[in-house]
Amino acid sequence: MIRYPNGKSYQPIQQIGTKKRISGESSYSNRGMTLEADLNETNQYYLVNGIAVIHKKPTPVQIVNVDYPKRSAAVIKEAYFKQSSTTDYNGVYKGRYIDFEAKETKSTTSFPLKNFHEHQIEHMKQVEKQGGICFVIISAFGSVYYLSASDLFFFWERQKQNGRKSIRKDELMETGHLMTLGYSPRIDYIKVVETLHFSDESE
Amino acid sequence: MIRYPNGKSYQPIQQIGTKKRISGESSYSNRGMTLEADLNETNQYYLVNGIAVIHKKPTPVQIVNVDYPKRSAAVIKEAYFKQSSTTDYNGVYKGRYIDFEAKETKSTTSFPLKNFHEHQIEHMKQVEKQGGICFVIISAFGSVYYLSASDLFFFWERQKQNGRKSIRKDELMETGHLMTLGYSPRIDYIKVVETLHFSDESE
Repeated sequence: MIRYPNGKSYQPIQQIGTKKRISGESSYSNRGMTLEADLNETNQYYLVNGIAVIHKKPTPVQIVNVDYPKRSAAVIKEAYFKQSSTTDYNGVYKGRYIDFEAKETKSTTSFPLKNFHEHQIEHMKQVEKQGGICFVIISAFGSVYYLSASDLFFFWERQKQNGRKSIRKDELMETGHLMTLGYSPRIDYIKVVETLHFSDESE
Repeated sequence: MIRYPNGKSYQPIQQIGTKKRISGESSYSNRGMTLEADLNETNQYYLVNGIAVIHKKPTPVQIVNVDYPKRSAAVIKEAYFKQSSTTDYNGVYKGRYIDFEAKETKSTTSFPLKNFHEHQIEHMKQVEKQGGICFVIISAFGSVYYLSASDLFFFWERQKQNGRKSIRKDELMETGHLMTLGYSPRIDYIKVVETLHFSDESE
């Protein structure tokens, strides 16, 4: 069980009327808090404390029909969700460009690569080539991991070579960086960025 | 008159049924090409040539009602445009974080500061503090200028002090960097970034 420094447990909030938690199922979404909400709080913490400026991009939407009523705000009457060609989060830390995607899985044995699509991998490769700091935050097996984009590319290429469509649990534990969940910031991924890219032994 | 290197003129496309161009009015939008379209083409050029990875963020939309029809894509039935709390464009160049906003004016005498709102200025200040490269691209008086965020802050503060609500034409010409419009890339703002932040005399 994960505990916040204040002793508050990070366990699922069992709400009245919800299904009982299935044994062995330990996805982030079952904890009553979402990965996205925790990252938003983390980014807000970084922002107000002057640590980093990272925002989630708006959901891409294809607008088809807009109504402009007199004397009131425009209403979008028809629109569709579009697949993003980039990642969801980006921003700046100590002048450097930061770019990442966050994903979660309910699987207890591996992280499925179908969580990413080719366009996003392409984008991450472009960012890496341009010297940006690129990674993914993966919530799996009851923990949250920081996986460098270069490591993700390895598993992505392997999928193309031998067809294995996921990252095994032990592989993620070995190549990813386990992030201890805190109270504030909740998911301190900048700490990993600092260690990997800014400390003396880095790069 | 501005000409592309291929001799093609950058003049307004006079379409049938549109109003005649008003003398003295020389906004970007009257040229039959938009500033946004030119920046998108420029970013595409940077991307395919491995020069920089810069994208326009999706338009922020507040989704209120979504229909999930069987066997077809979800349809957003009610949504509203939201004011962005950041700028429209960001990305990476040589590892550094790049962040900018693009604005145009039809005024022939000055650039109105009401094109920006306090939230955006706040965001730009946070980016500057974090060591990011931040600026605005202004289309005005028949030209396109690169204005560093720090210079924009000066005019923004002056507005608060003495109430002048715009940047005078001569001020923009003096503090901004005039960008010659090209064919490809159309608006080579990375050239200015390179001169200001990466050349020997910079920073």
